[in-house]
Amino acid sequence: MTTPADQTVAAANGAANPLVVEVTRGDMVESRHRAAAAILDRSGKVVEAWGDVARPVYGRSATKPIQALALIESGAADHYGLGEVEIALACASHNGEPRQVAAVTAWLARIGLGVADLECGAHLPYEEESAAAMIRAGIKPTAAHNNCSGKHAGFLTTARHLGEPTQGYIAWDHPVQQRVLGVLGQMGGLDLSAAPRGIDGCGIPVIGMPLTNLALAMARLGDPVDLPERRADAARRVRAAMAAEPYFVAGTGRFCSTLMAVTGATVIVKTGAEGVFTAALPTLGLGVALKVDDGASRASEVALAALLRRLGLLSPVQQEELAKLLSPPVLNRAGRETGRIRPAGAAPF
Amino acid sequence: MTTPADQTVAAANGAANPLVVEVTRGDMVESRHRAAAAILDRSGKVVEAWGDVARPVYGRSATKPIQALALIESGAADHYGLGEVEIALACASHNGEPRQVAAVTAWLARIGLGVADLECGAHLPYEEESAAAMIRAGIKPTAAHNNCSGKHAGFLTTARHLGEPTQGYIAWDHPVQQRVLGVLGQMGGLDLSAAPRGIDGCGIPVIGMPLTNLALAMARLGDPVDLPERRADAARRVRAAMAAEPYFVAGTGRFCSTLMAVTGATVIVKTGAEGVFTAALPTLGLGVALKVDDGASRASEVALAALLRRLGLLSPVQQEELAKLLSPPVLNRAGRETGRIRPAGAAPF
Repeated sequence: MTTPADQTVAAANGAANPLVVEVTRGDMVESRHRAAAAILDRSGKVVEAWGDVARPVYGRSATKPIQALALIESGAADHYGLGEVEIALACASHNGEPRQVAAVTAWLARIGLGVADLECGAHLPYEEESAAAMIRAGIKPTAAHNNCSGKHAGFLTTARHLGEPTQGYIAWDHPVQQRVLGVLGQMGGLDLSAAPRGIDGCGIPVIGMPLTNLALAMARLGDPVDLPERRADAARRVRAAMAAEPYFVAGTGRFCSTLMAVTGATVIVKTGAEGVFTAALPTLGLGVALKVDDGASRASEVALAALLRRLGLLSPVQQEELAKLLSPPVLNRAGRETGRIRPAGAAPF
Repeated sequence: MTTPADQTVAAANGAANPLVVEVTRGDMVESRHRAAAAILDRSGKVVEAWGDVARPVYGRSATKPIQALALIESGAADHYGLGEVEIALACASHNGEPRQVAAVTAWLARIGLGVADLECGAHLPYEEESAAAMIRAGIKPTAAHNNCSGKHAGFLTTARHLGEPTQGYIAWDHPVQQRVLGVLGQMGGLDLSAAPRGIDGCGIPVIGMPLTNLALAMARLGDPVDLPERRADAARRVRAAMAAEPYFVAGTGRFCSTLMAVTGATVIVKTGAEGVFTAALPTLGLGVALKVDDGASRASEVALAALLRRLGLLSPVQQEELAKLLSPPVLNRAGRETGRIRPAGAAPF
């Protein structure tokens, strides 16, 4: 029997994916990243695709906007009076900055729980100054500082609302995760019952699905007219929250926040670990999903920005404002620019 | 005219490099890195090679053991009474741990200079606890904490010994850098006068050369019988210092230090930024150079370890001791193993 693992090992011997992001230094290209990407509309039509978009990938945190649908459509968000900040946090890989951590902590209190109920594990804030402030003060990071704490607060909120046990909510067979996996399968338009699976960095299940299906899920998020009304409403609220509170989706200096602060509601983006990126593009009725083969975020960001530009979603003024996302400089320790990260000229960006 | 940059952009459209390191999660491979590698003997014979080993790559810090030759053969090391700790530091990308920083600072004092003379720029120690201790104490990192400070101390030592200006020693046209580039060209067996160049993270020039030439330089370092006596002696001393003081080549928990602490003088290895790794293998009379296309260290380490195993340089007991280097676990935030980094089954490891 050929297992998914066998299939993907075999795929490694095939053609390399064609989207290339290159890192220059001085006279030459020093490193290269390759990616596959798919752009679909809500009907499932592949509008554009590059590379192996049929191979399952783990969507990781790039699926958080889809996972958050369950929080809203279950009635949990309204029951506990969640606002756009909380919904943005449910979709976030946040920086662990004080305002973000305070918002998650207040949210947990609102559902009668606390940081100790989060099962995501602890890590220092991504944002350097927030991390340094904690180290200086001798404060250890808690699960609230985990970049996924908003998503986990969302899981707990749904469990509380539906009278499900809160302990063990990260397990595959817990109703919270089964519900979220159901939403992922429905939005992605595929049966996930035999899909490859694993454990995410924050302990929840991850599920492998093709980039085409991830892109379809995002297309439906951006253009939900065919969805049942309850879900369509949830999709609009997720998008509205991310567009209104981009800071709470990532944080200071981060790609997703910087981009959405400029584009507003026309471009809803979410990064995921190991080089995944998704976007919902409501004005075009399209969804995007991409994965960098080697898992590098520096490349997934530049590839996503290049695709948005290619789709005509960034005006010349916006391109100027976002120059550091479109082609970030590589700096040395003295702050001197020694190279650039950029879409390769040969790539169809 | 075709510039090196044009050539490398074109190369990106060609076949992907064949050495594959894969990152698994649960049921499937999540990410993949590709690499090229060359193994040569001291005569320049290519013993084994995988992928495009003719394209220039920047050797980055993986060339430090070659750069250190100038420090010794100039007579500077003996003039100032440098021992194995200092020579290991000249070859190091160190962790910025207190013992390492203290050794660099004492060395600078010995040549009548100080930390302010280092032109490498400052960054927090790589080693987490050392960095946290500085943040807690409110101490800003200096150039001595820069992972390259030992190499820079070596540059300054040579300049002092030869009566050259110390200010501006990182510039391309400074005699210190011209001398080092001369050694690189001689050891690598090629003319670098028109080679692609750039600026390294620590401000010094980097020069592009094929992996075959990098591997040749390392083969000659490991088996220097054909070199002029003064250089052959310097090569032996560099190797002896790295083998005797592996802690000072990298530091706590780091790949190079952990490996050399186990292998002793039979395997001399050095990592470089953007996925480069080199090795001198004196008992086999071979040199190794590899570059991961995308620049990931997690892959260059696993690829190098796999090649050493393939060459029969790691005994079963050593393989057991080094299991975490040969196939590191991927852990989630709660410390649970969620995957592995490993050479792909299809790769010729």
